[in-house]
Formats: sequence, C-alpha cells, structure tokens
Amino acid sequence: MADKSKILIIGGTGYMGKFVVEASVKEGHPTFAFVRQSTVSDPVKGQLVEKFKNLGVTVVYGDLYNHESLVNAIKQVDVVISTIGSFQLADQTKIIEAIKEAGNIKRFLPSEFGNDVDHVHAVEPAKSAFETKAQIRRAIEAAGIPYTYVPGNLFAGFFLPILGQAGVTAPPRDKVTITGDGNPKAVFNHEEDIATYTIKAVDDPRTLNKTLTIRPPKNIYSFNELVALWEKKIGKTLEKTYLPEEVVLKTIQESPIPINIFLSINHSVFVKGDQTNFDIDPSWGVEASELYPDVKYTSVEDILDKFV
Amino acid sequence: MADKSKILIIGGTGYMGKFVVEASVKEGHPTFAFVRQSTVSDPVKGQLVEKFKNLGVTVVYGDLYNHESLVNAIKQVDVVISTIGSFQLADQTKIIEAIKEAGNIKRFLPSEFGNDVDHVHAVEPAKSAFETKAQIRRAIEAAGIPYTYVPGNLFAGFFLPILGQAGVTAPPRDKVTITGDGNPKAVFNHEEDIATYTIKAVDDPRTLNKTLTIRPPKNIYSFNELVALWEKKIGKTLEKTYLPEEVVLKTIQESPIPINIFLSINHSVFVKGDQTNFDIDPSWGVEASELYPDVKYTSVEDILDKFV
Repeated sequence: MADKSKILIIGGTGYMGKFVVEASVKEGHPTFAFVRQSTVSDPVKGQLVEKFKNLGVTVVYGDLYNHESLVNAIKQVDVVISTIGSFQLADQTKIIEAIKEAGNIKRFLPSEFGNDVDHVHAVEPAKSAFETKAQIRRAIEAAGIPYTYVPGNLFAGFFLPILGQAGVTAPPRDKVTITGDGNPKAVFNHEEDIATYTIKAVDDPRTLNKTLTIRPPKNIYSFNELVALWEKKIGKTLEKTYLPEEVVLKTIQESPIPINIFLSINHSVFVKGDQTNFDIDPSWGVEASELYPDVKYTSVEDILDKFV
Repeated sequence: MADKSKILIIGGTGYMGKFVVEASVKEGHPTFAFVRQSTVSDPVKGQLVEKFKNLGVTVVYGDLYNHESLVNAIKQVDVVISTIGSFQLADQTKIIEAIKEAGNIKRFLPSEFGNDVDHVHAVEPAKSAFETKAQIRRAIEAAGIPYTYVPGNLFAGFFLPILGQAGVTAPPRDKVTITGDGNPKAVFNHEEDIATYTIKAVDDPRTLNKTLTIRPPKNIYSFNELVALWEKKIGKTLEKTYLPEEVVLKTIQESPIPINIFLSINHSVFVKGDQTNFDIDPSWGVEASELYPDVKYTSVEDILDKFV
C-alpha cells in the first residue's frame, strides 16, 4: 500500500459516503473517516462507524465547523474526498480553507455525485443547489488546489428499483409516469461503481484537474428506452402517462420542499437531458469507463433483472 | 393605508412566497416583491410576476447576490419578509447585511414556515437545514434587527390532500403508511392562513422579537387521529402500516436526496413530535390563533371534506 494515497473522507456516514469509504478500503488505500463525536451515539450512523473500524478505517473525530480539527485531520492524509450532504454543500469553503492551511493535499474531490453542474439547465430549487456546487468548484480552482470532480449522474441503486416513480417500493407493473416526452437520455450508475471510479481517480494523473464523467455505454437510457426494456423483461405493456414540460414546471412551482427538489432534478435530467446533452471535451473532462475498462460495472439490465 | 407598513417580500415567486405576497396585498399593505430580472422570462414564475403587478404589487428588480440592489430595495420599505428557498437559507446573511446598511427596517421575518427550529430533535439532513435557520435567527439577534419568527408547522394544503403519503394524488382509501406509532401530535396549517398570520404580525408590538407559533386548536392532530377522522368521513377502515423509528432512521440513511429530506422532516414531526412537544413560553413566543381570533382559518376538517 506504500504507493497508494492516504484518503480522508468527510461525510462518510452519508448516503454516498459509505460507498466511498468502502471502495477506498477495497482499493487498498489507507482510509480515514472524519466523523463528529456525536455520530458515535447515533443509532444508525454509530453502527456505520463501527463497521468502518472493523474494515480498518481510521476514524478521526472532529467537526466541519471546527477549523483546527479539520486541519489536523487533513494533515494526516494525501487526498480529501467530501461526500457532504446537500444542505452543507456551501460549507465546503471550510474544507478549502483547511486544505490551504494544511498545505499537503495532492487532490481534493468535492461533494458532487449528481449532474455535472457546469452543464445544466435547471430551474429552482435544483438550480440553487447546482450553483452552490459550481461555486465550490470555482473556489477550489481559485485556491489552486489540485482537484477531480466526479458527477455520478443518477443513483441506479435507488432509481431503478422504483423506475423513478415516487412512493413505490418495486418497479411498476401496470402504469408508469414519464417526465417529459421520455426521449432525452440519462445515465444510471450504481452507487458502488460511482464510488469505485471515484477512488480509481485519486492517484491518476489523467484525472488531475479534470471532471471524471461516468457514462458507461450499458447505462445510458432514455426514460422511454428504460420502460421498454422493463416491459420486455416482464412481458407486459405498461400504461404510460407523459408529463409535458409546462405541467412539470407548474407542479414544481406548486410543490413545497422536498417534492420540488425531486421534480426539479427530474426536469433537468429527463426534460432538458442534462446528463447527456453535451460532449466531454478532453480539455476539461475524461470518461470513467474508458479510463478504467477493468472495472466490471453493474449495468441497468443487471439491476432490473433482480426485480423481474 | 397610511398606517400600514410597506412590506418587501424576497422570494415571492416561491412556494410560500406567493401566498405571503397575496396576503400582504389583501391586508392592505403597500407590497413590494424583490425579483430577479431573469425571472420575468421564466415560463411559470414570469406569470406570477404579472399576477403580482395586476394585484398592485411593486416589482423591484435585483439579486440577492447584488448587495446594492438589495439595499436599494430595502430602503423603499419598512418591513422585510424572506420566503427564500431551502438551498438559499444560509445566504440570508446577505439580507441581514443589507438591512444593517439600510438602517430603516422596523421588522425582519426570515424564511421559516416549518418546524420551530429552536425546538427540534431532528436527524440529518433535516438537522442541517434546521440548524441553518437557527443560525440565521442568531445572526439577526446579534445584529440587533427587530424580528418575528413564524414557523408555520406542516403545509396542510400540500400534506392533507395526500394524507402524507408519497407518490399519491388523493387521500388513500385502502391503506396508509404511518411514520412512528402515530401518537405524537402535529399541526396542519393552510398555507394561506400561515401567510395571513405572518402579515398580521408585522405591525403588531406583541410579536416584536418573538416567535409566532401557529397552533390553532382545530388543526392539531396525531397521525392516528388524522387517519381516524378520514376513516370516519369516508366510512371505511384503512389498512395501516406503522414504521417504527429504527426503520425510519435506517430508511433515511439508505435514501438519497430528496427522499431523505422528506423522511427526516417526517421523523422530527411524527416520531419526535417536534411541533407540539414544548410549551410556548411568553418570554419568547405567542400563539397566532389566540392573538388573532378574527382570522377564520381553514381547519383540517374543511380540507379533508373536499376530498371525501
């Protein structure tokens, strides 16, 4: 493990964080998790911290809002990955300040794991969340910190088992609601694969100061293609309801949090096609499945097959 | 209208904002809406701006991130109400700075309209969102700006027509999922009433530097009581599934945004009972329906009756 960077994960007990911690361990990196002391007594997250320890993770206690604790944690590692939650995205400026002071970090990966926020056409409230992520990117660049951005596109492990339908616990077998006309293509990546690609990137000179876009060929589907694939698997045609953009926009306007968040992300992905409506330019980006062909990623079909 | 304060609403085209703008006009206040120039060309929000103009609202163009535009708008009024969205809550420090510079504001009402964030027992991600609101309260107090906080509890106009069930478009008639054991009491207030109480408070010395809690007697129900009322109205017993706290916490942990937001708010409201598990102390709070008995608020029964 001598040549593998030491990685600190901030936000490791979050939805995406736990996958990143596990991928870091699996890929052989000395792995550190930055955790609040209070998390230990949390009934669910406390168990996760125990699990991390059993995996060999070094748990470093501290708080994002305690500068010294952050600097001390950062000084112990080479790479910092933030997997911090949506309401703390803006507070990643505190990580940037600490990295600047520590002065030893070879790579910083801020919390992304969704759309590529430099290529979106979103409405509120997603617009504000995306803008916050973009502002953090600009702050990292202004600080001269080496970075990799890893927008993961859609979480397949969450989205596919419900085929994007709110309030269901299994893929629909009778009817399905489709946001927009169903034609723009989206990308459905399994959380474990997003985490694996993230870890692969940290020591790779090809991803230095680049965006690592994850668009594996077997995971790119329009909503219509996804439904057609599911229909083929279950041998049945679903009743489809299409929501035109004006209806989607009106519903976003008339829905409180968090429904408006869900719908405005869907609008960006499925109406605007923001996960695939731009090319990856080598000046700023690389594609994960091309860079790491050895990663046997979970495909959309693999996941759907489990629910047939 | 000479004795009615001039009110500026920041975030007026948002979910809660439009109700506040309309209530301000209805109550006879000279009403100003702070709107970005780009909003005018937004297909949905642009229509709202037109509607505001037709109501006699003065639309002031500017941007939260343009200090001068904010100060100029604030100088034209007596009272500022923020109804800004969840991802911009922290940026209300910019409003505080502008109010300090303008120096003429008699009352500031920050964006609240949910749980009373000084009396919550929430888990992430709601925890962070609530903490951000609490930090804004502390910043207002530190700046010595006269304030009223108006946590509105649950949005009845959104919650009741679906009886809190995700992904449905009408109250359930067969089965219902209940977060927790269904016993803690919550408060379901209609958005228009929350807006009316908000506007009533702006010129009221009794609400100066106080929290205006909205707990009208006819709107306080436990989840079990709410379901029982609905069952009585439709003359049918629903099949009930109770989600114990450990299941709720685990599901929050295993769900990405925005499902985790929805569930963590539900956890605070329906498991912890955070809308009613504390008394209103006169040192910091007043209750809206006691203060304004003349407001004929929409009751839970009024709303459910529409769906029978």
